[in-house]
Amino acid sequence: MSEETTRAVVTDLYAAYGRRDFDREAELIDDDIDWIIYGPMQVFPFAGHRHGKAAVLQALGDIAKDYVLESYVPKVVIVDGDQAAVMSDVAFKQRSTNRTLRFHIANFLRFHDGRLVEFREFANTFDLVVQALGHMLPV
Amino acid sequence: MSEETTRAVVTDLYAAYGRRDFDREAELIDDDIDWIIYGPMQVFPFAGHRHGKAAVLQALGDIAKDYVLESYVPKVVIVDGDQAAVMSDVAFKQRSTNRTLRFHIANFLRFHDGRLVEFREFANTFDLVVQALGHMLPV
Repeated sequence: MSEETTRAVVTDLYAAYGRRDFDREAELIDDDIDWIIYGPMQVFPFAGHRHGKAAVLQALGDIAKDYVLESYVPKVVIVDGDQAAVMSDVAFKQRSTNRTLRFHIANFLRFHDGRLVEFREFANTFDLVVQALGHMLPV
Repeated sequence: MSEETTRAVVTDLYAAYGRRDFDREAELIDDDIDWIIYGPMQVFPFAGHRHGKAAVLQALGDIAKDYVLESYVPKVVIVDGDQAAVMSDVAFKQRSTNRTLRFHIANFLRFHDGRLVEFREFANTFDLVVQALGHMLPV
């Protein structure tokens, strides 16, 4: 895959997510994708390791059950061969409380034949848990 | 800065950190660097925003006061123009307990004239706090 193709697919993928176009999103995810959102599943049940498109779409659906995407703005997009890294500013409204969680997200992506085959997501999950629970944790 | 130069400086920077060569590290950090490690400062006092080389070297020194670097292995290095992203597997031994914390780190970097001018570090900080404290948090 050329770097230009990778860049185009990254743009396509984040634009689709930003406008909540999950059909397009699904088209860009490989059947055999290896996917990890690093975070505590006790608080964020959609976090953790998923293998295969169906499991990933289920995780995306589980996010949408608990949170409304308010904004997703990629601030840095780094592309190198068939890999990319994207750092974004995001806001999600928690449906149960109507509170908005704001944070930065770091994604590492790898593509094959125009589709996402590997995905790793990082965030400052301690802060995210504090925002989700609405109170500080005893540390 | 050419992409090849960026790649060479990234390699230099992580090799220096890996062999604990803080003098070389310091040479590769710009005087005016903008630096953020996303994480709770109550548990990791070296986290947070730092501006300028002196403050960053102080933060690196503060990490070394509490933790011994056991291993730092960049697994994915993505370079694009003057920017880079690096995902690493790392292990740090907590001096106070002799316990080893193992985790993944995601870095976003920007360079100017061969030196690091912008740095953002992400990790699954909820898990990191649990590892550092040695017990689960009430969630």
